[in-house]
Amino acid sequence: MSTLTTTAPAPATTAPSVDALGTSAAKARSAVLEEQILEEPGRFRVLTGDRPTGRLHLGHYFGTLHNRVRLQDLGVELFVIIADYQVLTDRDVADHLAERVEELVLDHLAIGVDPERSTVFTHSAVPALNQLLLPFLSLVSVAELNRNPTVKDEIAHSGQSAVSGLMFTYPVHQAADILFCKADLVPVGQDQLPHLEITRTVARRFNERYGNGTAVFPEPDALLSEAPLLLGTDGTKMSKSRGNAISLAADADETARLIKGAKTDSERHISYDPVGRPEVSSLLLLAALCQGRTPEEVAADIGSAGSAVLKRTVAESVNEYLAPIRARRAEYARDRGYLRRVLREGNERARAVADVTLAEVRTAMRNHY
Amino acid sequence: MSTLTTTAPAPATTAPSVDALGTSAAKARSAVLEEQILEEPGRFRVLTGDRPTGRLHLGHYFGTLHNRVRLQDLGVELFVIIADYQVLTDRDVADHLAERVEELVLDHLAIGVDPERSTVFTHSAVPALNQLLLPFLSLVSVAELNRNPTVKDEIAHSGQSAVSGLMFTYPVHQAADILFCKADLVPVGQDQLPHLEITRTVARRFNERYGNGTAVFPEPDALLSEAPLLLGTDGTKMSKSRGNAISLAADADETARLIKGAKTDSERHISYDPVGRPEVSSLLLLAALCQGRTPEEVAADIGSAGSAVLKRTVAESVNEYLAPIRARRAEYARDRGYLRRVLREGNERARAVADVTLAEVRTAMRNHY
Repeated sequence: MSTLTTTAPAPATTAPSVDALGTSAAKARSAVLEEQILEEPGRFRVLTGDRPTGRLHLGHYFGTLHNRVRLQDLGVELFVIIADYQVLTDRDVADHLAERVEELVLDHLAIGVDPERSTVFTHSAVPALNQLLLPFLSLVSVAELNRNPTVKDEIAHSGQSAVSGLMFTYPVHQAADILFCKADLVPVGQDQLPHLEITRTVARRFNERYGNGTAVFPEPDALLSEAPLLLGTDGTKMSKSRGNAISLAADADETARLIKGAKTDSERHISYDPVGRPEVSSLLLLAALCQGRTPEEVAADIGSAGSAVLKRTVAESVNEYLAPIRARRAEYARDRGYLRRVLREGNERARAVADVTLAEVRTAMRNHY
Repeated sequence: MSTLTTTAPAPATTAPSVDALGTSAAKARSAVLEEQILEEPGRFRVLTGDRPTGRLHLGHYFGTLHNRVRLQDLGVELFVIIADYQVLTDRDVADHLAERVEELVLDHLAIGVDPERSTVFTHSAVPALNQLLLPFLSLVSVAELNRNPTVKDEIAHSGQSAVSGLMFTYPVHQAADILFCKADLVPVGQDQLPHLEITRTVARRFNERYGNGTAVFPEPDALLSEAPLLLGTDGTKMSKSRGNAISLAADADETARLIKGAKTDSERHISYDPVGRPEVSSLLLLAALCQGRTPEEVAADIGSAGSAVLKRTVAESVNEYLAPIRARRAEYARDRGYLRRVLREGNERARAVADVTLAEVRTAMRNHY
């Protein structure tokens, strides 16, 4: 079950069938939105978030986290949900939930999310948000829920008993997460366009049925971001659970050791060729992202010096790039009281927003007696 | 989609397959519970409720309402939920929701529900109750939800597009409705035993997974009540939508007119024979319930005087029985401010109870950060 961002990989699934037309339309729309953000950032509210499954790593960072900070720093209002109701079936997480949530808050503070401007909050702390699930569920059919590719796959592979009611209704929770704060932008990868489509459907149907001519909810836009394809150190998808990921919180030595053990190939000449040489190219890309250059430039620097030099370059680039982030993280980690305050204030802000939205929803639905 | 009581008939469905053994066990258990209630009524909390689809009628009254007042007057704590989120797909109700809700409050006050002792509240006013839906959904599989006979039938007849996510997850909402106040008794008809079973399952699984050795939730018992089979005036099931029901709020003339038009048979000798003479027997039963006698006694009184005398007897009995109820109803109907206060105070009480339960749930699930 995935959440709004690439930080929550779904259980092994086939890619959802978003047609190429839909994707290219979403790309064109995103380009327009990016221009509008530059012109009038204060017009936009972004909802994004993560499941609290553990420390975030470089794949998350370059895939989505740095984009959050970019948007915040442009002046967009940012809501970051920590989806603590989406990890209930993961026993390991459930047993260490408080630590996992704290790690997420720490990672966000470390990368530059500013709790004065942005709202970081947990799902379970906002009852009015969760209540929205009920009217929203009435606007979506079982047939539509069954179309969710993650659910489809899970049922096909393991049967209906393997899919909980929570997983089945997940796209509707996501609609509540996004619409409670009337977010108009949701940064997503291409594979999550179908999920966002359900949120748009819910918003549209709610407005049609209860809006009485006005739009209670915006139909939020996807802000498509191209996540760079960073592989784990073993050449497969980077993932905490595979032990092949460099977490933001790792220290410089651990980082160097992990990169030193990374899979490469035996050719001494280093070149950027994502299809022919995926492992080497991923390392080049990582160094390039950290240096703010292209992977081709990094490759040219190394020339025929071989994998060892490539790895040293990558380790140095990553450590240099992450040094200030790690320093901030260590500083915040020493102040648990502050972390708790950040979350408490974020939860309070989210509750205030949710209470206002629920009151509007209750008025629209004539739930005042 | 039915709610907890017979006041909310489900869309045409086949009877759920409760095996005879399960039913007789539930009956035996109910008998024991009834004894315990007499001994120690203060030990029990009852949750019951209705969908706000309109005025309640005599079928509701003798089927479930008078049992609520009986339990309340014995000293059992009573929670009555007005399920205003379970009527969203009924356009006619949705457009007149406030009136429908007010009718329900009025009917309850009229029959003797005492807002000082009992709590009448609306679903939509209690966010913490609704939030329970999320953890509860994680404890139930799609396979289990598909076993709901109402859902099964609806999908078989009209397809998955006809079943909303709200209808599909209905038994889990019901679990939240019952468990938020830790009700230990739920008065139900036999056909609702499977629904209550899901509530018991949710309570058991929650305790097992999160209870850490203690029971956060009781596993509520069904209090089986035998609803007398009262037919509508046309000889079919009594139902507001068929126009064959005598509502509590009807006046004496309307009642007499409706009963005068009731279907009977041409035999002048009046006898109680529910199988052979269902319409005549239903009228006898109604008079008997109002007179506190058996239908056979009422039949003996009438002898061979024919249907006209039977109907006159029934109309008089009903009007006499309902007179004090109707007088109270008319009195309360003149005081809208009071009605609103009853509901507001009921909602506040329900919210306070739900907040305490949600706090316990969050502690059990380690949602404190």
